[in-house]
Amino acid sequence: MITTKKRGGLANVVAGDSNICLCGATDESLLIRGYSIEDLAQSATFEEVVFLLLAGRLPKRGELFEGSYEVDELFLKVPQNASPMDFLRTAVSLAGTLWADEPNPALRLITSLPTILLSWMKQKKLPLKRGSIAKNFLELLHEKEATAKQIRALDISLILYSEHEFNASTFVVRTIASTMSDYYSAICGGIGALAGPLHGGANERAYDLIHQFKSADEAEKKILEMLSQKIRIMGFGHRVYTTKDPRSDIIKNIAQSLASAASDSYLFEVANRIEEVMWHEKMLFPNLDFYSALVYHWLDIPKSLFTPLFVLSRLSGWSAHFIEQQSNNKLIRPLSNYTGPKHQPWIPLEER
Amino acid sequence: MITTKKRGGLANVVAGDSNICLCGATDESLLIRGYSIEDLAQSATFEEVVFLLLAGRLPKRGELFEGSYEVDELFLKVPQNASPMDFLRTAVSLAGTLWADEPNPALRLITSLPTILLSWMKQKKLPLKRGSIAKNFLELLHEKEATAKQIRALDISLILYSEHEFNASTFVVRTIASTMSDYYSAICGGIGALAGPLHGGANERAYDLIHQFKSADEAEKKILEMLSQKIRIMGFGHRVYTTKDPRSDIIKNIAQSLASAASDSYLFEVANRIEEVMWHEKMLFPNLDFYSALVYHWLDIPKSLFTPLFVLSRLSGWSAHFIEQQSNNKLIRPLSNYTGPKHQPWIPLEER
Repeated sequence: MITTKKRGGLANVVAGDSNICLCGATDESLLIRGYSIEDLAQSATFEEVVFLLLAGRLPKRGELFEGSYEVDELFLKVPQNASPMDFLRTAVSLAGTLWADEPNPALRLITSLPTILLSWMKQKKLPLKRGSIAKNFLELLHEKEATAKQIRALDISLILYSEHEFNASTFVVRTIASTMSDYYSAICGGIGALAGPLHGGANERAYDLIHQFKSADEAEKKILEMLSQKIRIMGFGHRVYTTKDPRSDIIKNIAQSLASAASDSYLFEVANRIEEVMWHEKMLFPNLDFYSALVYHWLDIPKSLFTPLFVLSRLSGWSAHFIEQQSNNKLIRPLSNYTGPKHQPWIPLEER
Repeated sequence: MITTKKRGGLANVVAGDSNICLCGATDESLLIRGYSIEDLAQSATFEEVVFLLLAGRLPKRGELFEGSYEVDELFLKVPQNASPMDFLRTAVSLAGTLWADEPNPALRLITSLPTILLSWMKQKKLPLKRGSIAKNFLELLHEKEATAKQIRALDISLILYSEHEFNASTFVVRTIASTMSDYYSAICGGIGALAGPLHGGANERAYDLIHQFKSADEAEKKILEMLSQKIRIMGFGHRVYTTKDPRSDIIKNIAQSLASAASDSYLFEVANRIEEVMWHEKMLFPNLDFYSALVYHWLDIPKSLFTPLFVLSRLSGWSAHFIEQQSNNKLIRPLSNYTGPKHQPWIPLEER
């Protein structure tokens, strides 16, 4: 049992009330609007979770959005050498200038940003197909039909990444919202935070880690070496959870089910062994990012899109927090502890 | 003496160490890297304050940056109907895709963003003139020479707005930085936060307030009415200071000195009367935004550029905080207090 109280970086500091998500530190559970993440992954679609997050309740029949938006040419002008994360941040900022009169910016962004991203990557205006966001993404990316199993794997991944309480990017969204700024500004901030390797970038680095080993035995040997050299292993541990991430079992099952059809199915054994070693040596458990890397790999999603997919999902949680923050607002403005010098006398340039 | 402890929104919560700025809650003073705001406004140039913020010490002779950067055509393609704040957020995001190899993004952004903004507004690539940022801004904006008095007024305003501890936008910059994300992402977040009317937008609203009165007597009468109707008066009070904002006296003096040459100098008397009424009725003091509105008005700066000028100045403080956060990093990740339902049973769509 790990009982050390985590400190610094506002760890364990309650920064506000929220009725969106319970990230249970005691029973290691996750509830979104009161629904368990297990139930949502089992029974909901990502579109239902989006509705649940934005409206605070599950949709009735006929309430789910089924429209589509055209992709503006301007998005394609963002330089091609930009990273997809830089593109998403810029695209949302541009959307703020293009969609000024949009009555429901959250719904529009969640439903159209996947197509905007892929249109930019392929440098052609893609149609926003009917069907789920997951199906649309896979089929526009690969330019062929996806199987029901592939679509549902991505759909569940989008559900798992959709919302997670006051994580760094969501807290950025809320802090920007607390100045009563606009939706697009808040989301730009969230994307910027998620771009950091300590936040959204972890699944890319988990992929690099797993992918470098040819067998479970090799992984065990090398991970032990890395631990002895105090190298940080990405995809393990969590600021809030202390013994397990409830999302990890769900995504691990999906990874296992996709492995059976893959030519490099040994990667699942590699990942599983890394998990065993990390628990045995450090009492650290895999978080959502670890097995997500394998799921995306077996969905033929390039690594550069792992973190962007996190954005396309988390947009839903960010939007819920934006709405909640502004509905009962208080400016978020902490203090710092000053550690610098006091009362420095001014010295003119010529005497320095 | 106001002693009520302010609560909520992390008020009075220390979120980390910093040696950049002391925003003195007890003696209502402001130190930047240990130098008093009075000394800096009296003797420094904005360029020296930028150096002080970025490097942690005053520059020696020959150390100040004197180069220039060309404006990229891409910036001019941002839609003309965007607000200048939306433009700045988008421009910084685009800069992140254009300047990937820039070794000193902070210095480049601080010295070139004023020209980029004005180039977009005028839809032509403007030259980055030699001379101070204040002189460059006024002369490119008005397309004529500015007087030394005008230039120094803007220069001091840039100094006063440059840095202010863990305010909402700076805290956003630090939270994004704490994921080890990139500089441009962090600054985009800062701009987004500053765009909110409870933060950077206050000087625009202070201008609207002052400008609606034809005399000091009218202002007194109307402000009393507004207070009795519980209407919030912008430009007064502060989350940290309780009896005065040390920057206000400095900018008030500048406003007074510019008033003498203005045809609408009565606005200074209007503002002064509002200040008296607010103190008498509510024990609230003007913050930096209040008299800044008049200074900008008398520098012929359009209201839509008030908050953008705040950005062009605060870039320096944000940059210092970005560097400091990443030099000794800890992910900023607080908790929320969950107020929603627990254990909602899943209900299939057809039964809802």
